[in-house]
Parts: sequence; structure tokens; C-alpha cells
Amino acid sequence: MAKRKPPYKTTPRGGRRTSEPAHSVVAGSSYWIWGRHAVLAALGNKNRQIRRLLVSEEAMRRDAETITALLSVRARAPEPESAGRGEIEEALNHPAAVHQGYALETRPLAQPSLEEIAKAHIGQGAERRLLICLDQASDPANIGAVLRSAAAFGAAAVVTTQRHAPGETGAMAKTASGAMECVPYIQVPNLAQALESLKKQDYWCLGLASEAELPISGTEPPERTALVMGAEGQGLRRLTRERCDMLLSLPTPGPLKELNLSVATAVALYELLARPR
Amino acid sequence: MAKRKPPYKTTPRGGRRTSEPAHSVVAGSSYWIWGRHAVLAALGNKNRQIRRLLVSEEAMRRDAETITALLSVRARAPEPESAGRGEIEEALNHPAAVHQGYALETRPLAQPSLEEIAKAHIGQGAERRLLICLDQASDPANIGAVLRSAAAFGAAAVVTTQRHAPGETGAMAKTASGAMECVPYIQVPNLAQALESLKKQDYWCLGLASEAELPISGTEPPERTALVMGAEGQGLRRLTRERCDMLLSLPTPGPLKELNLSVATAVALYELLARPR
Repeated sequence: MAKRKPPYKTTPRGGRRTSEPAHSVVAGSSYWIWGRHAVLAALGNKNRQIRRLLVSEEAMRRDAETITALLSVRARAPEPESAGRGEIEEALNHPAAVHQGYALETRPLAQPSLEEIAKAHIGQGAERRLLICLDQASDPANIGAVLRSAAAFGAAAVVTTQRHAPGETGAMAKTASGAMECVPYIQVPNLAQALESLKKQDYWCLGLASEAELPISGTEPPERTALVMGAEGQGLRRLTRERCDMLLSLPTPGPLKELNLSVATAVALYELLARPR
Repeated sequence: MAKRKPPYKTTPRGGRRTSEPAHSVVAGSSYWIWGRHAVLAALGNKNRQIRRLLVSEEAMRRDAETITALLSVRARAPEPESAGRGEIEEALNHPAAVHQGYALETRPLAQPSLEEIAKAHIGQGAERRLLICLDQASDPANIGAVLRSAAAFGAAAVVTTQRHAPGETGAMAKTASGAMECVPYIQVPNLAQALESLKKQDYWCLGLASEAELPISGTEPPERTALVMGAEGQGLRRLTRERCDMLLSLPTPGPLKELNLSVATAVALYELLARPR
């Protein structure tokens, strides 16, 4: 049911009344998540606020049980709204969105601080802790793809800068394919300073650079790693590069030398976190 | 200069007259390639037919020399047309295309046959030959991303099926980022039969399957490999799986198990073609 705005400003008495739980009031305005994987994962994340949930008839036939189960364990959740393809497209306001009949209106998650993430103990079977630091990554779809590989290979967080990288968006959640719900996405004011602080907490800053002589396979993965990735075409900025303890390369023996950012990150994660030794 | 159609059918005498060189008459109608990397790479490929080239003023300021040089070595090439953002968007008929001021109308490349690619000698410094076989991959952007990694890690071709996979498209060329011009994209009638024929030519068919026990790092890369990748979410079809000599897994120690198709392919290529041993 759509709310109508009254034609005049209202100031509720007795303080601010709101139907939102206090913990969900975070920075950033509401946005839509679309696509089956991304929406079902969002429904399963109790820290994820749900404002509206639009589901096509076909999607409801496919996933009614799952959706009911995921909604039933939430303290407060809206009824799913049955919506046609046109209604979903209008809500998303994104003509090329492959929504598959699933759309969820939400707000950006409250994220932990870099300090909280960095100091966490290594445990639960994991031998190593790795934070992915993206230097000036700007494409939400590419960042979403990095989040997805982070969730698959077990990286602890994706760190970007507040000024040059986008906040949580629908395009990011789509390519993250559910990873947005389990991998913290942390935006820091200054990446060089963040790396300095990580180094004080026993993190090794490993930067990927095509001109580096040592291949990434040539180093023993540290127990705590900040994997620092530059933007496509530009590489690491000088200030970022100077903060790295070591520069490593990914060998590309073929005719094109430059990998997509999310692909290069995934190969590095495989080498540092997943490849059996 | 745009050609006008006469208001009646014409049958030229003395056989078919055409302004196109014979080698460029291949299956598939014309389509647009967009984006700086993809368009400049297409201009540099002499086997690539150019019907029109639209360039924004800003793009021309940036790349006039490169474009002139690339066009000057071609036997026949159109003049670049200066075009505004709106004109390019109208030509592409794709609202979300990130064209960066570059658009090129072309036709699909004439591709070699699988037999020609398979039998080629291993040489020029490469120790191994690898063909990527995609079982029912349907997303052009994902296939383009596979082509890009193929070009970076030195795979010899990307093979898909005629019925279930798309032909060359603009979205594919965009994510391929130039790789479409140097990596053959071969569509075969039947993948299982293609694998059988490759096996007779000394190729080892290695399938990636999440349930396989042997990690991909646990095998010595063969000299000739067909790397067989299933579609996301579905994996390898039974008939394809049965043709594989060996099933291998990519370890994903994190909470989400499924990788994006192009990411999984890239990690496998790194392991089989690029990682120093």
C-alpha cells in the first residue's frame, strides 16, 4: 500500500515517530535490490531492513515457501506485493535491470568499522585473514563482483574510499549475488592512512602491480593480509603504492595484458586464501 | 554518408555487386561495438569489417592520431563521423551502453573451424594449448569476460554451442575489451561431439565441477587441454560431464560456494596456463 504525502509539513509531537527499528537508521537513502539470488539473500539477512518486497507471480510460484520462511523469522516485515514485470521495472527505474521477478526496497546496511574488522580473531577453521582494499574503484558492478569472490574465497571485507567509490547500490548487490549480506563493505576517508593503521595491527600490505617482478605465487601468504588493488587502466596511486610492504604481479602470458579488476582480485584471492599448499 | 534505399527492388546485372570484400561476407547481420578499448582493438584488426565509425569530439581529441594511423593501413575504411552523445546512443539503441564516445558498426568475424584451431602447432614460447569450452553459457557479457581472460592468460579459443549461446554481440565485445579481435569465438553444433573429436586429437578434457574431489591445483596441466565449464547454477550437463577425462574442483572456503562463470574460468586458466611451476 503506497503512502500518500500530506500537502503540508507535519511535525509529530512527542519526538520523532517512525516505524523503523532504531538499528536500521543508517546513512544513505533507500534503494532497490533486484534479482533472485540478491533478493533471497537480503531476506535472509536479519540486519537488512525491508521496506517493500515486490515478487512476480512466477517468482512466487517458484519461491513462496522460501520467502514465507525467511519473512517469518523477522521481527517486522512487510507483506510481499504481487507485481507484474512492468510494475517492477517502474519501481526499479532501471531499464536494463535483469530482475527475474524479484525486487526489494531497502537501505544501506550498517557496516562495522575497519578497526572492528581488522582486530577480529582468526578462527573457525580459517588460518588467515585478508582484507581487500580497492584504490579508486568506481564501477558498482565491478565492486559487486569483487564482493562475490570475497565471499567465495573467504576474504573478511572489501574496503574502498568514501570519496571515489560508490556506496551500496542495486547494481552492486546484483553482481554480488548475495555476498553483500555476508561480506562487510567498508568505506574509509583515506586509503593510505587505513593501510598505515592496518600495518600497525600486523597486516602485511600486498599490492598487485603489473610491473612487479615477484609473481604472487612466489610469496608465502601472510597470516594477516591487506590485498591492495588499483583501478583498471591506472593501477595503484603513488601514495597507495608507497604504503605497500610488497608489490606482486599476476603473470599474463597472453596477448592482452590487463585483466578485469574483479577477475584479477579473484585470482589473487585464490592464490592467497584458497589454493592448497 | 548514409545510403538511401531505392523505392523498388534492384537486381544488378553481371552478378552480385557489392562494396564489401569477399572475405567479410560471413553469417550474421551487422551490429555495433562500443567503448574505447573494444573499438580501438576492432580498428586494429584487419579482418574486422568497418561499416561506420562514430566518434565524439572528446574521443577524437584524445585518440585522433591512433584512429588515423589504424585507418591508414586498411585497404578500405570509412571516414570517422563526428557524433554527439545523443547520436551515438540512438545508433546503439541500447540505453545503458557505456560507449565513452566510440561506436563502430561491423559484422561478426569469420571464425576458424574447431579443427583448424585444435590442430595448430604449439609454439612461439607457449608450452601448452588450451581451448575453453562453455557448456550452455548464455550471457553475452559473461562470455565477453571469458574472452578477455582467455586473451590475458593465453587460451587459444572460446568454444560454445550454436543453439544455446549467443553469437558475437556488442555487449560481448564490450566486456571482452579488445579480446574479441585476438581470441577465436567458435560455435559448434554439439559440444559432446566436439569434445570427442578433441580427445582424438590428444586433448585432455578437464571439467570443472564443484563436487569433484581433486582440486585443480592437484593435476599437472596437460600439453593440450579442453577446459570444460558448465553454466552458472546448473554446472555441466550429464552428456558433457561424461565426455570429460577428469573432473576438478576450485576450492571455495568462504560462505558462498558459487563463483561467477568468468571468474571461475579465469582462476582455472591462471592455474593451468600462467602460474609458475
